[in-house]
Amino acid sequence: MELTKLEMLYEGKAKKVYKTEVQDQLIVTYKDDATAFNGEKKGSIAEKGAINNQMSAILFQLLEEMGVENHFISLINEREMVVKSVTILPLEVIVRNVTAGSMAKRLGLEEGKILKSPVLEFCYKNDELGDPLINDDHAIALELATKEQIQYIKEQALKVNEILQEFFLTKGLKLVDFKLEFGVYDGKVILADEISPDTCRLWDSNTNEKLDKDRFRRDLGNVEEAYQEVLNRLKK
Amino acid sequence: MELTKLEMLYEGKAKKVYKTEVQDQLIVTYKDDATAFNGEKKGSIAEKGAINNQMSAILFQLLEEMGVENHFISLINEREMVVKSVTILPLEVIVRNVTAGSMAKRLGLEEGKILKSPVLEFCYKNDELGDPLINDDHAIALELATKEQIQYIKEQALKVNEILQEFFLTKGLKLVDFKLEFGVYDGKVILADEISPDTCRLWDSNTNEKLDKDRFRRDLGNVEEAYQEVLNRLKK
Ligand SMILES: Nc1ncnc2c1ncn2[C@@H]1O[C@H](COP(=O)(O)OP(=O)(O)O)[C@@H](O)[C@H]1O
Ligand SMILES: Nc1ncnc2c1ncn2[C@@H]1O[C@H](COP(=O)(O)OP(=O)(O)O)[C@@H](O)[C@H]1O
Ligand SMILES: [Mg+2]
Ligand SMILES: [Mg+2]
Repeated sequence: MELTKLEMLYEGKAKKVYKTEVQDQLIVTYKDDATAFNGEKKGSIAEKGAINNQMSAILFQLLEEMGVENHFISLINEREMVVKSVTILPLEVIVRNVTAGSMAKRLGLEEGKILKSPVLEFCYKNDELGDPLINDDHAIALELATKEQIQYIKEQALKVNEILQEFFLTKGLKLVDFKLEFGVYDGKVILADEISPDTCRLWDSNTNEKLDKDRFRRDLGNVEEAYQEVLNRLKK
Repeated sequence: MELTKLEMLYEGKAKKVYKTEVQDQLIVTYKDDATAFNGEKKGSIAEKGAINNQMSAILFQLLEEMGVENHFISLINEREMVVKSVTILPLEVIVRNVTAGSMAKRLGLEEGKILKSPVLEFCYKNDELGDPLINDDHAIALELATKEQIQYIKEQALKVNEILQEFFLTKGLKLVDFKLEFGVYDGKVILADEISPDTCRLWDSNTNEKLDKDRFRRDLGNVEEAYQEVLNRLKK
């Protein structure tokens, strides 16, 4: 069945989400808009929407095959996919294999140091507060998720990390860190949102060249080329 | 045996720590100096040193009786105590029963809301970085403590909370939150540092009047009186 985009449910910084005639299915349209530093820096990256949509599709399918339940149903076209409609938990779930970004800054660490074991972080997904880092007790006190959901999310996030790390490595890419979002579908927590160079730090495994949104954040140039390069490698 | 203060090992914001002729025993002198907001605000609170020393002694003795091993050995005089020399773990261990301070601010919560269950936080004790909030994975990655030490510290901190909450309540005081430091003594983690109105938020249980360092931080007046009032109540 061909689904139709009905009313737009929300427009975020990177995607638009539409209702469809199927009650628990949504259409997600990926935009070229790029923001950084909690919306302070704004711009656009040509073809980003198309790349992130296709890359997310590839990775969600891989994860499904490997037993990680997620919201992906099917690709509609270059920029759009059908997903299960979930109630997003207001948590940003970050997994880190190498020091970088906010963790390096907060803790006074040099970027690029390999962590002995993956570091998992939760941030409270709240733009007004700047997505503050929280711990399990905060998540429970704020009723962002239950203790059981938190435990399950941690397990799933680490499993996703193992699968993606290995997969990216076969494509010559180091998975430095990434951010996941989970949602509740039919009473169960499943992986949702996107997996793309917007939400992952990916470095070339030989040269450590950054092939992700840090090129935009830090004005490193060749932003579009980096996004395209990642998709090309994944498609090989 | 009377101990003598030998060379000063370190001078912190609130205390001076001296070697003694006994290798694993130190003398701590409590100062009247007061700082807040990571040292940005500076001042002094008359008799604070004497009050914090005596209050810490009372509480460490109570905790020892209740089975919480800690560094306290004996009082020397109004401002000084003998303690076991520990290797302090660079962790600030915070327990919260009611929303206040940095947690309320970070998470956009109103102050004074009772938490359904205590919230435990770790901060990386590092003045340059502003004592950032961390989670267990960060503590392990930074090698601030081992997994086993972290687990033990959590259990002890919650036990301290139960003991102190109950004790303060008999004195008409609500234990809103507090900060602990732990150290390694003879291979074992024990409670160290101080427990005082500098490190606890204490509110009168009837009026919610603040009887702690927030009077200094927020220029509420009657700072010395509040510290004195707390000690008086504990001595009753
Ligand atoms: N399967 C889904 N069901 C419902 N909402 C989703 C799903 N997947 C992602 N979302 C949400 O879609 C919104 C739009 O995405 P995005 O543009 O990335 O937003 P943001 O500005 O919050 O990053 C986000 O709130 C995201 O959590
Ligand atoms: N039993 C102990 N053995 C060794 N050091 C201790 C002990 N108890 C506390 N300390 C340390 O004494 C130092 C001085 O205390 P304080 O003035 O409160 O310092 P700070 O400025 O770090 O808050 C701190 O580094 C504290 O961790
Ligand atoms: Mg997003
Ligand atoms: Mg101190």
